[in-house]
Amino acid sequence: MMICVIMGSESDVKIAEKAVNVLKEFGVEFEVRVASAHRTPEFVEEIVKNSKVEVFIAIAGLAAHLPGVVASLTTKPVIAVPVNAKLNGLDALLSAVQMPPGIPVACVGVDRGENAAILALEILALKDENVAKKLEEYREKMKKKVYASDEKVREMFK
Amino acid sequence: MMICVIMGSESDVKIAEKAVNVLKEFGVEFEVRVASAHRTPEFVEEIVKNSKVEVFIAIAGLAAHLPGVVASLTTKPVIAVPVNAKLNGLDALLSAVQMPPGIPVACVGVDRGENAAILALEILALKDENVAKKLEEYREKMKKKVYASDEKVREMFK
Amino acid sequence: MMICVIMGSESDVKIAEKAVNVLKEFGVEFEVRVASAHRTPEFVEEIVKNSKVEVFIAIAGLAAHLPGVVASLTTKPVIAVPVNAKLNGLDALLSAVQMPPGIPVACVGVDRGENAAILALEILALKDENVAKKLEEYREKMKKKVYASDEKVREMFK
Amino acid sequence: MMICVIMGSESDVKIAEKAVNVLKEFGVEFEVRVASAHRTPEFVEEIVKNSKVEVFIAIAGLAAHLPGVVASLTTKPVIAVPVNAKLNGLDALLSAVQMPPGIPVACVGVDRGENAAILALEILALKDENVAKKLEEYREKMKKKVYASDEKVREMFK
Amino acid sequence: MMICVIMGSESDVKIAEKAVNVLKEFGVEFEVRVASAHRTPEFVEEIVKNSKVEVFIAIAGLAAHLPGVVASLTTKPVIAVPVNAKLNGLDALLSAVQMPPGIPVACVGVDRGENAAILALEILALKDENVAKKLEEYREKMKKKVYASDEKVREMFK
Amino acid sequence: MMICVIMGSESDVKIAEKAVNVLKEFGVEFEVRVASAHRTPEFVEEIVKNSKVEVFIAIAGLAAHLPGVVASLTTKPVIAVPVNAKLNGLDALLSAVQMPPGIPVACVGVDRGENAAILALEILALKDENVAKKLEEYREKMKKKVYASDEKVREMFK
Amino acid sequence: MMICVIMGSESDVKIAEKAVNVLKEFGVEFEVRVASAHRTPEFVEEIVKNSKVEVFIAIAGLAAHLPGVVASLTTKPVIAVPVNAKLNGLDALLSAVQMPPGIPVACVGVDRGENAAILALEILALKDENVAKKLEEYREKMKKKVYASDEKVREMFK
Amino acid sequence: MMICVIMGSESDVKIAEKAVNVLKEFGVEFEVRVASAHRTPEFVEEIVKNSKVEVFIAIAGLAAHLPGVVASLTTKPVIAVPVNAKLNGLDALLSAVQMPPGIPVACVGVDRGENAAILALEILALKDENVAKKLEEYREKMKKKVYASDEKVREMFK
Repeated sequence: MMICVIMGSESDVKIAEKAVNVLKEFGVEFEVRVASAHRTPEFVEEIVKNSKVEVFIAIAGLAAHLPGVVASLTTKPVIAVPVNAKLNGLDALLSAVQMPPGIPVACVGVDRGENAAILALEILALKDENVAKKLEEYREKMKKKVYASDEKVREMFK
Repeated sequence: MMICVIMGSESDVKIAEKAVNVLKEFGVEFEVRVASAHRTPEFVEEIVKNSKVEVFIAIAGLAAHLPGVVASLTTKPVIAVPVNAKLNGLDALLSAVQMPPGIPVACVGVDRGENAAILALEILALKDENVAKKLEEYREKMKKKVYASDEKVREMFK
Repeated sequence: MMICVIMGSESDVKIAEKAVNVLKEFGVEFEVRVASAHRTPEFVEEIVKNSKVEVFIAIAGLAAHLPGVVASLTTKPVIAVPVNAKLNGLDALLSAVQMPPGIPVACVGVDRGENAAILALEILALKDENVAKKLEEYREKMKKKVYASDEKVREMFK
Repeated sequence: MMICVIMGSESDVKIAEKAVNVLKEFGVEFEVRVASAHRTPEFVEEIVKNSKVEVFIAIAGLAAHLPGVVASLTTKPVIAVPVNAKLNGLDALLSAVQMPPGIPVACVGVDRGENAAILALEILALKDENVAKKLEEYREKMKKKVYASDEKVREMFK
Repeated sequence: MMICVIMGSESDVKIAEKAVNVLKEFGVEFEVRVASAHRTPEFVEEIVKNSKVEVFIAIAGLAAHLPGVVASLTTKPVIAVPVNAKLNGLDALLSAVQMPPGIPVACVGVDRGENAAILALEILALKDENVAKKLEEYREKMKKKVYASDEKVREMFK
Repeated sequence: MMICVIMGSESDVKIAEKAVNVLKEFGVEFEVRVASAHRTPEFVEEIVKNSKVEVFIAIAGLAAHLPGVVASLTTKPVIAVPVNAKLNGLDALLSAVQMPPGIPVACVGVDRGENAAILALEILALKDENVAKKLEEYREKMKKKVYASDEKVREMFK
Repeated sequence: MMICVIMGSESDVKIAEKAVNVLKEFGVEFEVRVASAHRTPEFVEEIVKNSKVEVFIAIAGLAAHLPGVVASLTTKPVIAVPVNAKLNGLDALLSAVQMPPGIPVACVGVDRGENAAILALEILALKDENVAKKLEEYREKMKKKVYASDEKVREMFK
Repeated sequence: MMICVIMGSESDVKIAEKAVNVLKEFGVEFEVRVASAHRTPEFVEEIVKNSKVEVFIAIAGLAAHLPGVVASLTTKPVIAVPVNAKLNGLDALLSAVQMPPGIPVACVGVDRGENAAILALEILALKDENVAKKLEEYREKMKKKVYASDEKVREMFK
């Protein structure tokens, strides 16, 4: 198990899915958990402390404390995905990113589950050449999609 | 001990002082603690779980998780004071007030330590007539200050 | 009668219902009122001054003055629920929470009627052991829901 | 007495002075009062209900309810001046301007006491030709100041 | 003709209608115009300078310059209605309300056409007792609606 | 080829279309490209460095870096169109407009593709009298539309 | 005369100076004017309509209408510099950039007078090879400053 | 060389110092560079492409494109530190964190250079047990500081 995707509420499952789809594509082992920082603090503690993963991806909306709580329980890298539940996600973004000195969280954009996964893979790639190679391929695929879009749009407006 | 004033960092001490000054004026027993939700999660847990107080006042800036973490550990009322450390305190305000369903926090205004104390006293007053009476007197004193300001300002602009 | 749920306009009724559902579940006596701080200031005064409740829950959108007006008329705890009517509810949040020194309001998150009810119950629980016990049970139920979500989601992504 | 300048706290006196200076320049009768919507609601009511003025200028910061409270007590025009006390005055601006249907407030810019006075004079000018004439002269004076600035700045950068 | 309702674009017509409905109810003479501050500056000038109305209501979204442009052309009171076209109307609100010293605009809430009309009527009422009386009646009607809502909601939650 | 319309993602194509429609109406030669500043930095470089156009229109949402990246590669004028993808487009607006000293970008409003085109044409008009003349005609047409709206709305509310 | 730098108030002179310093360095002819969109609308009209310049740079704070008003009077490119006078300049930024369809303004960052000048020069460079060449040199100079900073900072942290 | 700290401008040096102090304390090899994404795009490319580091820390204010530009040139993890230069750093935060799908950046809080360093160390610790151990010690030291603050503050308010 390399990565733990943890979300504060079942309602965040669509954002988690974006991360999971990328992780599956890379063939990296992961687990997906639901645990609320506020409703089940001990459960979060249990999951984090017993986990053997290398990286945590914590997904939460509103006063998005889950990433910070996970970070307070481990020195493994914790990636935060703020979710738009109210206020366009500005509440979750600020709650996730504005961590105090000493306990950082690696925040990605609002609802950006896929980017959390890629960031986790970039971290894993530092000691797994296979992942590193796949990341390069992933970028190549993205480039090709952009080139295809370019051709399509040029055609469209000719 | 009736009230626990807890702050996330020593740098919040001036906001705590605003609360303490009110509590002293009312002669209510209180304790003041420093414990960081992120740097010392077990210490926060220890303080909250062992505490016999009726109300918590939790003071924090930035991604102000302390009030929410305290609230996750007790069913006693938790009052949040968001502190202006960055972004005019908007980060702390949203981090404190936007709690998920089930675990409320009673948020007062940015840097409003004195109001947290008064709110705590209003809660205590429900079972302590002495506090209730003092709250009425406190309001009377505030009124008199407003009347005095009114006289002074009317004079100033005559 | 222990709790008064008061809203500024009939259009806030869905947010009030969230509070009412919790209060009913706890079997605590409450009343629900509509009174506008701006259109019917005397009516608000009449309701608040004649009320024998322990806690007020004031629900309002836009320039959400109702919680502050209620607070100006009583030293009982007043819980504010800012409602998203415009600007994602940021106007109501700031209008409710940023009270001046001396007259606090206990603000919960935007549209968070259920949390206002739980906070009110936490306050009542200080002198009603029955409510205190039910709050613990309520938390347990929430925890079980999170555990169930966790199982469901783990299954989903296996 | 034509105009009542009312502020929520003595600390708003510098913003009130900006209004007063304009009113003095126009020779219009006015009074200046301090009364807090939250600390002294009855006092605000007393002042507004007994007042014979034509226009109210209400100055307040934070959760700036004073203008709305005054407006709830009279059908005379009420001009709001939101004051920058926290959050750059965004809290006061939204609290003042976002009034519900039926009870409008005429909001001017943050800390713009002078503009509240001019707006009040524009209203009075509808039935006082003398004020109307002075408003035209006031505009002329402003124009001349702009022309003078223009000359000065052109010289500066020649 | 007492009031000119002017909007920057035909797309603002629904907000104008809210104002018109109130003005019709009061039987006050008004005209409704479309003129863009940016696309037709001379047309705005022509309308404002030739107008004999007592009060202008200027409705605009985005960089809502129309109210300010109207105010620059007259010393009659100008009421601004910021419209939500982008950014929840925050752009229009700030563009309308933050006028420089000397040229005020009386801003009401976002999309609040009805309040602009009532504010205009409050201004007219200073020299028209008939309008003043109708404003009192209008308030009474609003109060009765609130009382009716109160009864309905109390019944609903009994 | 006079103008290059470049967008960061195919999903911005509707905003690009607004620009294209104006450019077509003016009969100015243009090309439309898709190239991502982040996914295909070399492709952006290739397009910009090989381009012979006079003006770039760069369209992007989120952390809208594309306009700035284009500007870093040319001293030709670069017009930015921030797109509303999240946070009402505030993220894209600030990412586009807040360029550091030395490398300006000419930012238009959120989703305002048509205005980017007109601005580009205003720039081209400085050396192409034909475009200048058409811009005057375009303004005349806009004026006529406003006059027509005015007539229609006046009729509507008569 | 190639460029007109126009500001809404003498208080914006420091931002204008940033633009002027760049224009002087490039040896391009310019004039600097003060004219308020609200206090002196005819004066703005007179300046703009009589001007023979190629590009306008309009500098304004608060409800920064000046750029839009200038743009409504000419089809020459108008560059807006929003000034931080209140609300961190967010009011001026939104007032300047969010122009309606048909009348664009080229907005640069808050207080970025120097960037307005460079953007104006980029526009002039389209028909003046001398300016184009100087722009390239200006970029080279900036690059060298960055290289020098890099050396200095590398040394500092060795 | 394990970590490259890169900043967009020499003016960000104080934020870089916060990172450097942590890195020195951990005895990890690092380099500090200045390179502007907009003024020196090729230089950024040169630095990033030739670098053998494991993690990049990119520090920038305003339209903070540097982190995203670095991320576009490498699949190594890139940590962004948004700097408060204008708008309280909200512009830099949104420009850094709101990256498009596929190219993530790991954003920490505004001006939080020290947290960027700790996050980088957490990443390195995944393959360097020595760093992992030091991170645990660092946390212990932080805890002791909190305990010391707690004692001090308890004494202060006894």
